[in-house]
Amino acid sequence: MLFKTTLTPRFYETDALGHISNTALTAWFEVGRVRLLESLGAHGAQPVDWILAAITMDFLEETFYGTDVDIVITALEAGNTSLNIKCEMHQNGRITVRGAAVMVHLDPATKTKCRIPDALRDAIRSLTRAPA
Amino acid sequence: MLFKTTLTPRFYETDALGHISNTALTAWFEVGRVRLLESLGAHGAQPVDWILAAITMDFLEETFYGTDVDIVITALEAGNTSLNIKCEMHQNGRITVRGAAVMVHLDPATKTKCRIPDALRDAIRSLTRAPA
Amino acid sequence: MLFKTTLTPRFYETDALGHISNTALTAWFEVGRVRLLESLGAHGAQPVDWILAAITMDFLEETFYGTDVDIVITALEAGNTSLNIKCEMHQNGRITVRGAAVMVHLDPATKTKCRIPDALRDAIRSLTRAPA
Amino acid sequence: MLFKTTLTPRFYETDALGHISNTALTAWFEVGRVRLLESLGAHGAQPVDWILAAITMDFLEETFYGTDVDIVITALEAGNTSLNIKCEMHQNGRITVRGAAVMVHLDPATKTKCRIPDALRDAIRSLTRAPA
Repeated sequence: MLFKTTLTPRFYETDALGHISNTALTAWFEVGRVRLLESLGAHGAQPVDWILAAITMDFLEETFYGTDVDIVITALEAGNTSLNIKCEMHQNGRITVRGAAVMVHLDPATKTKCRIPDALRDAIRSLTRAPA
Repeated sequence: MLFKTTLTPRFYETDALGHISNTALTAWFEVGRVRLLESLGAHGAQPVDWILAAITMDFLEETFYGTDVDIVITALEAGNTSLNIKCEMHQNGRITVRGAAVMVHLDPATKTKCRIPDALRDAIRSLTRAPA
Repeated sequence: MLFKTTLTPRFYETDALGHISNTALTAWFEVGRVRLLESLGAHGAQPVDWILAAITMDFLEETFYGTDVDIVITALEAGNTSLNIKCEMHQNGRITVRGAAVMVHLDPATKTKCRIPDALRDAIRSLTRAPA
Repeated sequence: MLFKTTLTPRFYETDALGHISNTALTAWFEVGRVRLLESLGAHGAQPVDWILAAITMDFLEETFYGTDVDIVITALEAGNTSLNIKCEMHQNGRITVRGAAVMVHLDPATKTKCRIPDALRDAIRSLTRAPA
């Protein structure tokens, strides 16, 4: 586990199937990614220099209202301009969701891809404990 | 009826009570207000010069997935810097929601209240057929 | 203050105006109401025996991403079958939203209004410290 | 193209980056899937006998407020108990999103996987014009 943040499901995130809607679960992964990046000092108050390029979600079990959910970041890897992030969602001791995302670092001025800054690379390296 | 727009409920807008969540219904009223303002030429592609000051919603009956909902604007009144808007939501021939909102016209540059422009006043007058 | 719960704004709750969307703020009030009712033992894991009859929201100031928001319940009054609930939202020491809601107690079996149970009345009385 | 449904972006689906939030785009894919299944007679008023097992989304370009978006189903393949569905989202003549989903057919009574009924297989075959 590289990073963990905890969410309390909200009643309006359920759907008529009686469980948390997959649309909410996908949104929760964004919460996990943003909080991870904030913890690494990757941006200021607003995540304006990252966009999401791709996402994969595997819904292994239903997630329910009534118990907290841990969003756990399990892998984090920096390429030149992109970040690969993997997560799991845990509820009541079970893994209910596995997700993977590719984020791309943007130059906010030009909105074009640009190299992930060294400070962030260092922070990622510290977190993942990979040798320099 | 001054204006009508129709929404098809989305499954993720239901909640575990088996009906459309009040949080979605409140959001639908925003859709009605924005489309009304767009139809009046009140802003360009993005409603950046209006903010919502207050909203009231009366949930008269449950709204369900499976049938279209009409958002009907029933009243529209311009003050100096504010607009009063009333709506009803109709589903299957029943009024399920009544709403009222106060919107305030902002100068986008300074983010302070400013007088509703004459062109919009004229458009509102035409719509509401009030004598000039 | 009768009850307080704290939310961390999520990035997807912002809109293109750069602040938290009013649609998210209205949804947060539901979070406050549900957590209040849960704290009073008003229902089990799912709030199936209450519906929202009416809501009023006054948006006094913009709410922003980046700082926690306290949902504060400031008034709570039980009628025969209905509850009146008032809230404030606080961010950075300012009141950004004032809300009021009327909830109605339902018999889950028949979906008709029914008297608020004495146990809940007692819990409300303890919370509001009104003389019995 | 096997099926198409059109959505008008809603202002609250934007985020502070000024475009449609990825969380809304993922939710729109659900709208496309549900409407596809409804058009095939795959369920009644509520999609209670299908769950989402996995989803992949590639965000190729930004999607914006102000212009309609077509959700286009490009592939549909039935296994024994699962459906593979591919979609594209088109805005202003550009493909902004590509998505793929795996849905699983459930017996509503037992909530366990069960074979996709022959009537639905026939409907899918007609749509995809594959030889029987």
